[in-house]
Amino acid sequence: MQAQKPIAITMGEPAGIGGEITLKSWRRRNDFSVPFVVIDNPDRLRNIARDLGFSVPIETVSDPKHAAVLFPDALPVFSIDLPSTPQPGVLNQLNAGAAIASIDKAADLAKANSISAIVTNPIHKHNLYYAGFTYPGHTEYLAHLSGANIEPVMMLACDGLRTVPITTHLSLREAISELSIDRIVSQSRITARALEQDFGLSAPRLVVAGLNPHAGEDGAIGDEERRFITPAINILRRDGLHISGPLPPDAMFSATTRPTFDAAICMYHDQALIPIKTLDFSGGVNVTLGLPFVRTSPDHGTALDIAGKGIADETSMVAALRMASEIARFRGIEA
Amino acid sequence: MQAQKPIAITMGEPAGIGGEITLKSWRRRNDFSVPFVVIDNPDRLRNIARDLGFSVPIETVSDPKHAAVLFPDALPVFSIDLPSTPQPGVLNQLNAGAAIASIDKAADLAKANSISAIVTNPIHKHNLYYAGFTYPGHTEYLAHLSGANIEPVMMLACDGLRTVPITTHLSLREAISELSIDRIVSQSRITARALEQDFGLSAPRLVVAGLNPHAGEDGAIGDEERRFITPAINILRRDGLHISGPLPPDAMFSATTRPTFDAAICMYHDQALIPIKTLDFSGGVNVTLGLPFVRTSPDHGTALDIAGKGIADETSMVAALRMASEIARFRGIEA
Repeated sequence: MQAQKPIAITMGEPAGIGGEITLKSWRRRNDFSVPFVVIDNPDRLRNIARDLGFSVPIETVSDPKHAAVLFPDALPVFSIDLPSTPQPGVLNQLNAGAAIASIDKAADLAKANSISAIVTNPIHKHNLYYAGFTYPGHTEYLAHLSGANIEPVMMLACDGLRTVPITTHLSLREAISELSIDRIVSQSRITARALEQDFGLSAPRLVVAGLNPHAGEDGAIGDEERRFITPAINILRRDGLHISGPLPPDAMFSATTRPTFDAAICMYHDQALIPIKTLDFSGGVNVTLGLPFVRTSPDHGTALDIAGKGIADETSMVAALRMASEIARFRGIEA
Repeated sequence: MQAQKPIAITMGEPAGIGGEITLKSWRRRNDFSVPFVVIDNPDRLRNIARDLGFSVPIETVSDPKHAAVLFPDALPVFSIDLPSTPQPGVLNQLNAGAAIASIDKAADLAKANSISAIVTNPIHKHNLYYAGFTYPGHTEYLAHLSGANIEPVMMLACDGLRTVPITTHLSLREAISELSIDRIVSQSRITARALEQDFGLSAPRLVVAGLNPHAGEDGAIGDEERRFITPAINILRRDGLHISGPLPPDAMFSATTRPTFDAAICMYHDQALIPIKTLDFSGGVNVTLGLPFVRTSPDHGTALDIAGKGIADETSMVAALRMASEIARFRGIEA
């Protein structure tokens, strides 16, 4: 393995399953083409490895170049202080600041061009709010840290399907109220650009979901297709985008329709998430589009209920690491 | 094959794919344990068979008992008059009344206990409105014809998953406004009863979906879970039902969660339909619960765009026929 720029994995919620899936991913290190470094507390990781009976040498580093050299033989860690020893499954407000510090450090490294990508472990937002965190989630916080004047776009990806929810953690009622031509146009443009730049698709094919059953049946069941979705598609088509819709939301994710598009622009969270998690619950990846740096994450939460039990599934973390390295390669920032 | 009570298949929209999938199903007649009779126009069916190069003898009958005897050698048809010769793919208002007459005849036969079940071919509602049809769809019209004083419940079923949308063809905004404790309770009760009576499950396990992302995260993103869904679940649990929820809508249809329940009560059309059609686009079946007679239908529309081309897929019709005969058997009305 060459001394490539490593991917940085954040700590995430220290009481969650992040440490376990990170250690399990390192044990599969021969599966990866790019090394990774963890921004975490070395003692926390050693405790988890010991409790799970994993033989994983943990080495503290301060230079990403060393991380790449160490990676085949040890898990390299940029050390983060933890005020309190985490107990698996038990949230502790004292450690909230450390979870944020890990994200901050990852953004610093990315902005300094020292790492090829960021992969974030799941955080527990309510616990972070105690430490003064005011963002809806990772995506918005990383956009803030990046300094980019762009609304980041969340994409979910699994084998054979990519979806982009126009809104994320809003109630369904609010999600409908937030629909607008501008929002659909802007997120579709960011998605199309990312499919070219980050996924190597020279003429990406987008489809746009309807909001209502049967995509509104020409206005018979709901008018949002006429008011927002079709006008947005017309604007995007005039841009030269390969885009079609509004499609009936129930039929568009079928096995025969999925191969006809590269990403589906979805009108609300569950319209985008249900097909992904129904098809591939453990292998889905969350990708943030529109940031100056590469960021992916596993498509699951902190799983406090199973933390420390050794049963956490690293499949999504492994998929997130692989996708991060692929995107970095398409952006030409791996070397 | 014994002279069982046949299943009656309605004509559906005469310009659609109904005739083709019916003929294709008859060609697979050895796959079925129960014979069927079609309520259709014999000349229409002969024309379709001729155009597709199918050798299917069509025999007009007036007594369902004869249908069962004829079935191995010919497709038995209760004849319906068609004012105009249908052109595949071309709607014709003149024939709208015949599509309704076919449904009426099926309901009459079911009420007279002469058939074991009704399987409906897809109709084109807008075309029927010209003939004075005023119902949102088959389900409501059959409920009216049955004379039963019950709100019928639509269930979608594919291999390994059954879902029930609390509302069907309403805009998403209206579907949210229509949510109520009463509606969830009443449809869950009908579903539980049908799972026992029609599917032979002695202690059916229901789950209820949340409306909002992550099922509202304890009220942080939407309050419908607190206002309607959880109170309804509490009432149903006091009834003695095996019921849980509200579940996060995106995760509940995963391969590991699907086997843990017998039906999912869903808060809107696409929440119920997306997982079914994503998993099994061509094999899904629509079942009407709560009617005095058995009714299923293929889970697709008239497909006017491919009518007459010979490429219509009969998989869903075959699944609907099989499910109808199973339900009839559980109800003890096959003999």
